[in-house]
Amino acid sequence: MNHYSDLKDLKDFQATVDLALELKNDPYAYEDLGKRKTIAMVFFNNSLRTRLSTEKAARNLGMDVMVLNVSNSWNLEFEDGTIMNLDTAEHIKEATQVIAQYADIIAVRAFANLKDKIEDQQEKILNAFIKNAGVPIVNMESALSHPLQGLTDAITIKEQELKKRPKVVLSWAPHPRSLPHAVANSFITAMKMSDVDLVITNPRGYDLDPEITAGTEINNDQIEACKNADIIYVKNWSSFDSYGKVIQQDIDWMMTQEKLGHAKFMHCLPVRRNVVVEDAVIDSDQSVVIEQAGNRTFAAQAVLKLLLKDLN
Amino acid sequence: MNHYSDLKDLKDFQATVDLALELKNDPYAYEDLGKRKTIAMVFFNNSLRTRLSTEKAARNLGMDVMVLNVSNSWNLEFEDGTIMNLDTAEHIKEATQVIAQYADIIAVRAFANLKDKIEDQQEKILNAFIKNAGVPIVNMESALSHPLQGLTDAITIKEQELKKRPKVVLSWAPHPRSLPHAVANSFITAMKMSDVDLVITNPRGYDLDPEITAGTEINNDQIEACKNADIIYVKNWSSFDSYGKVIQQDIDWMMTQEKLGHAKFMHCLPVRRNVVVEDAVIDSDQSVVIEQAGNRTFAAQAVLKLLLKDLN
Amino acid sequence: MNHYSDLKDLKDFQATVDLALELKNDPYAYEDLGKRKTIAMVFFNNSLRTRLSTEKAARNLGMDVMVLNVSNSWNLEFEDGTIMNLDTAEHIKEATQVIAQYADIIAVRAFANLKDKIEDQQEKILNAFIKNAGVPIVNMESALSHPLQGLTDAITIKEQELKKRPKVVLSWAPHPRSLPHAVANSFITAMKMSDVDLVITNPRGYDLDPEITAGTEINNDQIEACKNADIIYVKNWSSFDSYGKVIQQDIDWMMTQEKLGHAKFMHCLPVRRNVVVEDAVIDSDQSVVIEQAGNRTFAAQAVLKLLLKDLN
Repeated sequence: MNHYSDLKDLKDFQATVDLALELKNDPYAYEDLGKRKTIAMVFFNNSLRTRLSTEKAARNLGMDVMVLNVSNSWNLEFEDGTIMNLDTAEHIKEATQVIAQYADIIAVRAFANLKDKIEDQQEKILNAFIKNAGVPIVNMESALSHPLQGLTDAITIKEQELKKRPKVVLSWAPHPRSLPHAVANSFITAMKMSDVDLVITNPRGYDLDPEITAGTEINNDQIEACKNADIIYVKNWSSFDSYGKVIQQDIDWMMTQEKLGHAKFMHCLPVRRNVVVEDAVIDSDQSVVIEQAGNRTFAAQAVLKLLLKDLN
Repeated sequence: MNHYSDLKDLKDFQATVDLALELKNDPYAYEDLGKRKTIAMVFFNNSLRTRLSTEKAARNLGMDVMVLNVSNSWNLEFEDGTIMNLDTAEHIKEATQVIAQYADIIAVRAFANLKDKIEDQQEKILNAFIKNAGVPIVNMESALSHPLQGLTDAITIKEQELKKRPKVVLSWAPHPRSLPHAVANSFITAMKMSDVDLVITNPRGYDLDPEITAGTEINNDQIEACKNADIIYVKNWSSFDSYGKVIQQDIDWMMTQEKLGHAKFMHCLPVRRNVVVEDAVIDSDQSVVIEQAGNRTFAAQAVLKLLLKDLN
Repeated sequence: MNHYSDLKDLKDFQATVDLALELKNDPYAYEDLGKRKTIAMVFFNNSLRTRLSTEKAARNLGMDVMVLNVSNSWNLEFEDGTIMNLDTAEHIKEATQVIAQYADIIAVRAFANLKDKIEDQQEKILNAFIKNAGVPIVNMESALSHPLQGLTDAITIKEQELKKRPKVVLSWAPHPRSLPHAVANSFITAMKMSDVDLVITNPRGYDLDPEITAGTEINNDQIEACKNADIIYVKNWSSFDSYGKVIQQDIDWMMTQEKLGHAKFMHCLPVRRNVVVEDAVIDSDQSVVIEQAGNRTFAAQAVLKLLLKDLN
C-alpha cells in the first residue's frame, strides 16, 4: 500500500479488519516495526479522537509522533502560476515536500468547506500531499471520506459477532449545524466491502452522492428501514443536492428506543444527545459508541502497520 | 490509590514526600515502570510549569505523553437530559470515556471560573472524569485544589532541613486580578498533614473557605503573623466571601525583607514583582522559588509512580 | 560549546559542516547520546520547518522533546525594578530559570519586531535565557540571526561539490511584507567562514547592517552581480536604514532563469512564487530548496550533538 487516502487503497479489506482485531488483542506485537520512523500529523481542522487514537496507534508501533496544528495559521497557495503578492505565503508544492523531509509517513486532516461542491471534490490538500510528498499519506478525514472511521466501523461490527449477513441501517439524524458527508461516505464504502445487508434511510433531499450509494437501497421511511435491524448507525449530514445546506431538522428523525428495536447503536461521536439520539438509546447496553471510539486506535494501527511494512 | 484529585487521596502523605525526594535523587530509578503506558494531559486552561513538569515526570517513568489543549475549542455539555441543539457539541459523559480509550492515566486542568461559588464547588469537569473515565485521574489544578503544588510545597519545606516543628506562615499579598483559591487551599491542607505550626495572615474579607482553614490561626496583622517565621509562603487569592472579587489591593501587604526576617520565601509562581513581593526578597538567598518550581517534577513523579504501581 | 546563539559560537565551523554531513549519512550514529536528556523548544513565534527539523534532530539523538508555543499567551516583563501591577504577569528572570528546571537544553525562537532597531539589537528574550537559564540555549531565530539556517546553507553548498572557491551571490528580492534580517545576516556570516567568493546584491536603501557586511562587496546592479555565479541565494529583507520598512517592491528584482544562469538556486522557504522567484527557477533542476530544507535536520543535529557532548 502506497497511501491510505480511501478504504479502496486496502488490498484486502477483511484481512485488514482481522489485523486490527489481532492488534487489539496484542497491541505491542509489532512495537519495533516503527522504530526510527516518524509520523507527522498535520491538522488543518481540530481533532480529539483522531489525534489521540492515531498518535496512540503510532506509538504502539514504536514510531515517533510530531503533531502540527495549522488551522488558521498557514495561508497556503494551491493554484499554479499565481503571483503570490497577496495573502498566501507558501505554495502547497513546497509545504508538502518540506514536511516530507522530516517524516516517514504524513497523516493529514482537511475537512470539506461545504460551500463549493466542486472544490470539495477536488480534495486539494489531500491530493497535493499525495502528489508531492513522496512519502505515504494517511487521510485523517478529508472532504469526501474518513477511511480510518470506516475501517473502525467495520471492526466494531465484526466484534458484535452477529448472525451471518446482518442487517445494517445507516440512518440520518437531525443536527443544527451543517456537517460533512465524509463519515457517511466511508461507512457505506466499508459496508459494501462487508458481508452485510445495508439500507440507508434519510429524508427526501438528503440523498448522498449517488456514486457512493449506487446499488444500495435508500428508504425515506425511517421506521420501516430500521425494522429488524442488527446494527443502526446514526449520523447527520448536510444536503448533498442543496450542497452543504441544512434543509430540515425534523426531530422525528432522532433515534429512539422504539426505532432501535434489538439493534446495536453506533455513532462516530461527538454526538448531540436528545437531538441525534435520545439518552435512553446511548445510555443503554445496546450502545457500542465507546468501544467504537476505542477501535479507532486499532484501525489506525492496522493501517500504519501495512504502510510501515511496505516502507521497510 | 485510585485517583489523585486531592492531597487526601494519598495513603501516606509523609511517605509520598520522602518518595519524591528519593526520585529527585535518582529520577530514573523507575524508568521502566511506565513502559507501554500513556498519560493524556488535558488542559482546559493554559499551563507552563504544570505542563512541563508533569510531562517530564511521566517521561522519567518511561511513559508516553499526549498533551491536549482544549481551551476555548470544546463546547461540552454537563447537564443530564439536555436537548443539545444549541452551543454544546459533546456531552462530558462521552468525552471522558473516549479519552480514557487512549490513555492509562488522564491528568486534567480545569480552573475555577470565580463567578459562581456553587458551580466551582461542584468541580464539574474533574468529577466527571473521575466518575466516567474508568482510569486514574490526576488533578492538575481544579477549582478547589492544586494537590501537585501542595505536595511540591511540602517537599520544598522538608528540603530546607529546618528545626523541628518550624513556624510556617501563609501570607496573602495584593494582586490586580482575581485569582483562584486552589493553591492556598492545597498549601493549607499539606501543612496540616505536616509537623509544622501554620499561621495564615490575610486582610479582613479575605478569609478562605472555613472548611479548609478550620483549626488554623488566622491573623489579620501581617507583621505580627510573620514574626519569627521559618517559612513565609506568599500568595494572592480573591475573596471567598465576596466570591471571586478583588476587594482591595493594599500594597502594604507586599512581602518585604523586613517582614521576611530570617524566613525562607516561597511562592508557586508566576509572581508579580514589586506587587506580591519586592525584588530584594525574591532575589535574595532566602528565596527558594526556583527550587520549588523544580520540585514540581518530583511531586508529579511520586504521584504517577503510585498510580502506575496500582495499575500494573 | 556553552550555547548556540550565533554561528560564531562554533569552535570549528567547517568541522561542524562535516559533522552534519556525517549525520545525514548515518542519522542514528549517536542515538544514545541524548538518552535521559530533554530539549524544551519555546516558540514566541510560529514555526514549521524549524519546529519539525529540530524536533526530528533531537529524536535522532535519543532526546525527549517538549514543545511550548507561547505566542500571544505569555505577558513577560523584561525591565528590572518594575512594579508589575499592569499587563505583565511573569518576569523573564523567573520564566527562564523555571523552564530550565525541566530541560537540559532550551531552544528559543523570538523574532525581531522590526519597529525599534535598538530594542531588536538587544535580543532581550534570547539573552535573558542565556543569562538566567543555566543550561545551553539554542537560537531558533532571533532578531539578529538564524544560525541553524546559516549552518544549513553552508551544508547545502558543500553538498553541491562545486569548484574550489565558488562564486556565491546573496540577492535581495521583492516581497509585500516587512521581513527580518536574521536569515540574510546568518547566511553572510556562514559564507565569510567558508571558502567562497561572496557578493551581495540589493537595491539602494536595502544595505544590511554594515557590521555584518563589512569586507563583502555590495553591488546594486543585480544582473552584473549574478554573472557567472555558482550559487544564488535569494531572500527578501526589509530596510535596515529605514528600519523595518518596505521601501520598494520592484518586481524587476525577482529571480529569473536568465539571471540565474548556470547557478544553483537557494532559498530558506517559505517563498512567494512569481514575486521572489519565478516558477521556472524554483521548478527547475537547479533549485535545491527542498534538499536545503531537509538539511535543517542535520544542522540542528550537529549543534545538539556538540552541546550534548559538553553536557555529558
